[in-house]
Amino acid sequence: MTHTDVTMVRIYLTEGDRLLDRLLEHLHDREQVMGVTVFRGTAGFGRSGKVHGQSLVDIAFDLPLVVEFFDAPERVEAVLDHIGGWFGPGHIVQWSARVNA
Amino acid sequence: MTHTDVTMVRIYLTEGDRLLDRLLEHLHDREQVMGVTVFRGTAGFGRSGKVHGQSLVDIAFDLPLVVEFFDAPERVEAVLDHIGGWFGPGHIVQWSARVNA
Amino acid sequence: MTHTDVTMVRIYLTEGDRLLDRLLEHLHDREQVMGVTVFRGTAGFGRSGKVHGQSLVDIAFDLPLVVEFFDAPERVEAVLDHIGGWFGPGHIVQWSARVNA
Repeated sequence: MTHTDVTMVRIYLTEGDRLLDRLLEHLHDREQVMGVTVFRGTAGFGRSGKVHGQSLVDIAFDLPLVVEFFDAPERVEAVLDHIGGWFGPGHIVQWSARVNA
Repeated sequence: MTHTDVTMVRIYLTEGDRLLDRLLEHLHDREQVMGVTVFRGTAGFGRSGKVHGQSLVDIAFDLPLVVEFFDAPERVEAVLDHIGGWFGPGHIVQWSARVNA
Repeated sequence: MTHTDVTMVRIYLTEGDRLLDRLLEHLHDREQVMGVTVFRGTAGFGRSGKVHGQSLVDIAFDLPLVVEFFDAPERVEAVLDHIGGWFGPGHIVQWSARVNA
């Protein structure tokens, strides 16, 4: 199996941020990144320590969301330069990976 | 805590691929990999730019699925040699990690 | 975009372990890690080969759970020293990543 280097990205939102649709549209229409998947967490908390989800506190309307995508490292760098300002510190995680070519 | 090196793998499918059961049976019965988990995304799109999920377009029957597993690097390499041909390019992402031993 | 090095962690549980609440409370109250999200898998199996979930065998009460978090490498190392003993081998995966600062 041959591979291509990619950067994996996971962006952490909550439903309350109301950023999901804007982010998906941007990644799809403007950036055309290779693969984007949205996952819904069932509980979570952020840097603030505020709990989202039903496990510790019942805040069902503010569940965590993760938008995951990957693409060539230089493309991801460009994408994150465009959208980085939409998110506070600690919300965008990235690491190096390989994808089947 | 002592660790063992592993390769993490995420394989991106959609429900419409109808590959999930075959893949799980293969990983379980033939390959006996260490840990396999299936996650269902709530929206997504692939290289084609075709949107899966309800966020942008209502295609509920073709939601994204991710099959995640990890095992020793040489075992993962063998597994991906066996199953790599089942998937088009850009669907299998892997990276190096460590697991508690 | 500036970055900080982090360690990403994924801990694999099942609902039947009944460890989730204890783990979340610990990570939230004691460790105060940066970001924790819980994901529910729809199927999976562990090292035992025992299948969890509805895809191969109908064990809906024992679905897989993943607790994901990230923080500075030295903080994660301390956290895993505290909680590592709660889990058998092969349940805690970690790798190096970067987060927006």
